[in-house]
Amino acid sequence: MSGNTFGTLFTVTSFGESHGAAIGCIVDGCPPGMALSVADIQPDLDRRKPGTSRHVTQRRESDTVEILSGVFEGKTTGTPIALLIRNEDQRSKDYGTIAESFRPGHADYTYWQKYGIRDYRGGGRSSARETAARVAAGAIAKKWLNERFGVTVRGYLAQLGELDVPFQSWDDVPNNAFFAPNASVVPALEDYMDALRKSGDSIGAKLGVVASGVPVGWGEPVFDRLDADIAHALMGINAVKGVEIGAGFDCVTQRGSQHGDELTPDGFLSNNAGGILGGISTGQDIVAHYAIKPTSSIRLPRHSINKAGEAVEVSTEGRHDPCVGIRATPIAEAMVALVLMDHALRNRGQNGDVVCGTMKIR
Amino acid sequence: MSGNTFGTLFTVTSFGESHGAAIGCIVDGCPPGMALSVADIQPDLDRRKPGTSRHVTQRRESDTVEILSGVFEGKTTGTPIALLIRNEDQRSKDYGTIAESFRPGHADYTYWQKYGIRDYRGGGRSSARETAARVAAGAIAKKWLNERFGVTVRGYLAQLGELDVPFQSWDDVPNNAFFAPNASVVPALEDYMDALRKSGDSIGAKLGVVASGVPVGWGEPVFDRLDADIAHALMGINAVKGVEIGAGFDCVTQRGSQHGDELTPDGFLSNNAGGILGGISTGQDIVAHYAIKPTSSIRLPRHSINKAGEAVEVSTEGRHDPCVGIRATPIAEAMVALVLMDHALRNRGQNGDVVCGTMKIR
Amino acid sequence: MSGNTFGTLFTVTSFGESHGAAIGCIVDGCPPGMALSVADIQPDLDRRKPGTSRHVTQRRESDTVEILSGVFEGKTTGTPIALLIRNEDQRSKDYGTIAESFRPGHADYTYWQKYGIRDYRGGGRSSARETAARVAAGAIAKKWLNERFGVTVRGYLAQLGELDVPFQSWDDVPNNAFFAPNASVVPALEDYMDALRKSGDSIGAKLGVVASGVPVGWGEPVFDRLDADIAHALMGINAVKGVEIGAGFDCVTQRGSQHGDELTPDGFLSNNAGGILGGISTGQDIVAHYAIKPTSSIRLPRHSINKAGEAVEVSTEGRHDPCVGIRATPIAEAMVALVLMDHALRNRGQNGDVVCGTMKIR
Amino acid sequence: MSGNTFGTLFTVTSFGESHGAAIGCIVDGCPPGMALSVADIQPDLDRRKPGTSRHVTQRRESDTVEILSGVFEGKTTGTPIALLIRNEDQRSKDYGTIAESFRPGHADYTYWQKYGIRDYRGGGRSSARETAARVAAGAIAKKWLNERFGVTVRGYLAQLGELDVPFQSWDDVPNNAFFAPNASVVPALEDYMDALRKSGDSIGAKLGVVASGVPVGWGEPVFDRLDADIAHALMGINAVKGVEIGAGFDCVTQRGSQHGDELTPDGFLSNNAGGILGGISTGQDIVAHYAIKPTSSIRLPRHSINKAGEAVEVSTEGRHDPCVGIRATPIAEAMVALVLMDHALRNRGQNGDVVCGTMKIR
Repeated sequence: MSGNTFGTLFTVTSFGESHGAAIGCIVDGCPPGMALSVADIQPDLDRRKPGTSRHVTQRRESDTVEILSGVFEGKTTGTPIALLIRNEDQRSKDYGTIAESFRPGHADYTYWQKYGIRDYRGGGRSSARETAARVAAGAIAKKWLNERFGVTVRGYLAQLGELDVPFQSWDDVPNNAFFAPNASVVPALEDYMDALRKSGDSIGAKLGVVASGVPVGWGEPVFDRLDADIAHALMGINAVKGVEIGAGFDCVTQRGSQHGDELTPDGFLSNNAGGILGGISTGQDIVAHYAIKPTSSIRLPRHSINKAGEAVEVSTEGRHDPCVGIRATPIAEAMVALVLMDHALRNRGQNGDVVCGTMKIR
Repeated sequence: MSGNTFGTLFTVTSFGESHGAAIGCIVDGCPPGMALSVADIQPDLDRRKPGTSRHVTQRRESDTVEILSGVFEGKTTGTPIALLIRNEDQRSKDYGTIAESFRPGHADYTYWQKYGIRDYRGGGRSSARETAARVAAGAIAKKWLNERFGVTVRGYLAQLGELDVPFQSWDDVPNNAFFAPNASVVPALEDYMDALRKSGDSIGAKLGVVASGVPVGWGEPVFDRLDADIAHALMGINAVKGVEIGAGFDCVTQRGSQHGDELTPDGFLSNNAGGILGGISTGQDIVAHYAIKPTSSIRLPRHSINKAGEAVEVSTEGRHDPCVGIRATPIAEAMVALVLMDHALRNRGQNGDVVCGTMKIR
Repeated sequence: MSGNTFGTLFTVTSFGESHGAAIGCIVDGCPPGMALSVADIQPDLDRRKPGTSRHVTQRRESDTVEILSGVFEGKTTGTPIALLIRNEDQRSKDYGTIAESFRPGHADYTYWQKYGIRDYRGGGRSSARETAARVAAGAIAKKWLNERFGVTVRGYLAQLGELDVPFQSWDDVPNNAFFAPNASVVPALEDYMDALRKSGDSIGAKLGVVASGVPVGWGEPVFDRLDADIAHALMGINAVKGVEIGAGFDCVTQRGSQHGDELTPDGFLSNNAGGILGGISTGQDIVAHYAIKPTSSIRLPRHSINKAGEAVEVSTEGRHDPCVGIRATPIAEAMVALVLMDHALRNRGQNGDVVCGTMKIR
Repeated sequence: MSGNTFGTLFTVTSFGESHGAAIGCIVDGCPPGMALSVADIQPDLDRRKPGTSRHVTQRRESDTVEILSGVFEGKTTGTPIALLIRNEDQRSKDYGTIAESFRPGHADYTYWQKYGIRDYRGGGRSSARETAARVAAGAIAKKWLNERFGVTVRGYLAQLGELDVPFQSWDDVPNNAFFAPNASVVPALEDYMDALRKSGDSIGAKLGVVASGVPVGWGEPVFDRLDADIAHALMGINAVKGVEIGAGFDCVTQRGSQHGDELTPDGFLSNNAGGILGGISTGQDIVAHYAIKPTSSIRLPRHSINKAGEAVEVSTEGRHDPCVGIRATPIAEAMVALVLMDHALRNRGQNGDVVCGTMKIR
């Protein structure tokens, strides 16, 4: 029970179902004195929003966020910040047929078994719509991390199905619907997606997220390691099935003489560690990748059962993402920002002071 | 701070440095009335123990565990169970040269920067020796899960460096030093390791862990999902750099029509989900794989710096695992068991009762 | 940081300032399947509401609660329940003069020192207005406890200033503005309060709260004892300065032969323990009393300082409770209900099952 | 479940039964770099220890503490500090008759009902012996608070049964067995206790604890208020039935014009608040009092029942405190120190820095 709060010192408590009145969250533990307004949060919500291109779900939500508390005369007060996003475009009839059956690969079955009741409309609480609240909270964390420490958190598409997306430039990322860091491959991605949509099927994706400017020393071994918390955060995003840090699964075939990042007075010579050693940040870029499974809501018919245990065929009409990965980037950025902010606040060194390390190398 | 407690209802608080007086933990939240003695814990510690074959570190510890509390007349009382393992074979002189320098790929640098002080002997708190305490705690969880629900948690080696280990049988796993589920590849693994040891280098590995018999319904969305907690637990094991559930990173290239596990009245037709949907167990086997990086302590010289920021060369003599992955299996089993037990106890359905699901399919 | 979440398994995360847009909370961990609607929550909010008699503050709020999530087709889903109460009658001009000075006995000074910024309007986050959110959450707990276990939680006034209120009957409590369990003393209380209001001063009070029908076995020693958690909950109500369980401070002069409640096959012979022994419920009524200090916002002038550290005189006009204790009863009931529900869900006995004790005595 | 960890950032996880192998705890979250040895902890354990005068229980334990981890070359490393105290003088035969019956006023009945099993010897986990572990942990907190902030935490006896103990001087406290701050009343206290012991009965007591030098700004409203956490900590000490802060229950009859502590540029004019306003420290002395009930283990026969529900008579021979309050002072000091240290570490102000307040007044 009670698995809807994330974090230890900087916490986010989330609520809301896909077709309920609203979604939102309470952010607790934001230090006082930071300038904050809706303008700091809305952009990331807009990046995540459905209906922004033909490649994502066509549900139309403005995702307008309202700040209900925790800000006074334009600054955070140190008290909880409640964020509210009203749902506007719930087309519950699109889900009527789902009420009695379970879509394969979706949480319908497990939610019903666990709770004995489920809000089936739009996937209820298991819907990715709920992630809008996380993105809103993450925007606050991103701002604070950036102002206080110069930390940035950015994500991108690394691979769409079989199509590799070689990293060219961060500048390309905001200019296409895929968060692809490579303008030249975008036409191929678009053709791929158009064909996919026609087929009624879906595909997976691999994405990356990088946090730069993180000071050395963040992370609380042995259980609340920074990498463990990042893995927890990313694996907790709907549809994620794998997470890796730095060289990740490539480590399996690496030698120690290859993998271990050597140090010099001017900095590290490589970053196979992905910015984390022994669960603590090294001061290098924190690099993570994650795998997103193909969407479970597809038009192609699939075998399933209904609540009575009888065999049925299920296919889902309506407005669904053919590749959930396309909208994942803002969510992953938000989750990593939430982890980092929590760790920034938890970090206490000698005398209980915040420690930034005594030796400056990068 | 305070990152040394794992779990919510069933918690493990761990302590101990590699060369300190002892390592151990307090297990809190074990229900009363279960038979428990050292005989239930020692075997898993022995499986993990150093010095059991020429392929692992040659440090000799008996890892004898003592139960200090929480058991009365052979049964758990519901009060905290303290487990103590005295360190016996600390050869601190082997680490004397490390006191001033940082080994690449190791936590030396980050611990020193974060805390301003580090017990360098044997890696101090960052040493994998600390995992013995987790294995001891995990043994309690394994027993309870098995007796109460018939759950088993078992791990194995899937790949050693470039050598793939095709899964043959669980019966092979206990009969070789590698936890390899395939007796026929063992000679090749041994030759590989002998060559590696001579070279003074190290290698990574990929391992798996499977939990069977888990009822449907465990997991607390949206943040304390079962897969997110498993990812947190596995990524928190020293040297782990990647975690995946079910099809994992293979999802990237899978179609929804391929990936989504169809249901029939007799059960699921596949298990790409790895036993978890929407963060909740489905009743199928929970399947996870994780990647372990090559050991950082190698004899080959590497560039590094010392505390004064000067360039130095570092190589580590002494007794070190050429492949940490070889001893990881009991640790991964323990961590997954701890996660499962916590979730079993957190799970509350209608009326606050433990829910097992109303529909029986597998 | 992050001190705005209450509970472990059944949690309440609260937000909102007195003159902000809204107050509210997220309730997480309510089991699924319970009927819930606004009609289950509004009555307790109405009991707490300002402006219901001339003896309390004249601020007019409807305290209308809206359920934003966690309920589907009239039943709880097991997902977070967000409750929202919009603020309507914020008369910020009444507080304008307070912006620069600190009212003695109030949190103005400490909030400003801690956060470096404070929403002074109506006391901001330190205002008792925030307790409306707790009362709303507590209503959910009361309902579940009553339906699942037959538990009731009821409070009353025990003493108003020097006026003792001898307990006559629970039936009297709802019929007067004081929650006094004694209709015959109400005229005296009213005269007392009228005189107080004229004087511009305020007074303290002593109140009680009783939980009946609590099964034996709730409480998690040694730190999360039921009495310790109740003390934490009651002392955490604005203006509370003392808490006692059972015989409370009367214990000081009691002999063991007097205090220890004897047991017989038909039940306990007394209840000096207040229903809790060793931090665990006995099955008897849980009885607690708490002391509420006199309101700090009074019309009489008081010495204080302003932000610049200069001596000033402070008096507060506007609409303030001459005795905060008069409205405390619904808040205390709510807090005790929240504690009890959390403990009901945490309680796990043999085999991890909910234990109700094997021996039935009362 | 899992109620044996205290604190959020600075945590203490305790274990051990009265007649088990050992008691102890793990302290997690102590900042690195503080000098620490057994010599810093043993004195407070000796103050608490049984057998130091004829007025307390005659069980002989050396309560020798051993530090198992978390300290290197005489300084804390920032890693968990495990403290172990072996039990030496368990006279289990003194408790043999208790195995089947429940002592009135004791936790025997509730532990058995909750867990279905209890270690009856010496009260098992419900024994006050377990508090030795808390005192050991508290000693670490006391040291850090004192070195980092100049905070001291001191307790004393305020009233023994009907005998009032007027506060004369802190200097008297260490010089008598009662922790009485008044040498002149000690002979009367001794006579009182001698008579009590002969009678075979027991008595309650009222005690105080004062924390001086606490900076303004500690406390995390609205739920983790400093006073609420102190109440939780003190009420969680065995045998405590009431807690009050500052004027406490005297508030009931105080006027606001009396109670509210006025401020001047040179400081507060009074301290009815007990050093806490709105749940946050003011910078004044933090003053709390608590009531301890008379011991339940007395020689006089009392009515009770046995496990079969049959009426029995119970009286306890052996070595029992006639007044538990006499040994409570070191425990209360420890608990308050633990709360203060946790709050010192949780306190984050503007920019996430530790805030000490900008205005210096006392």
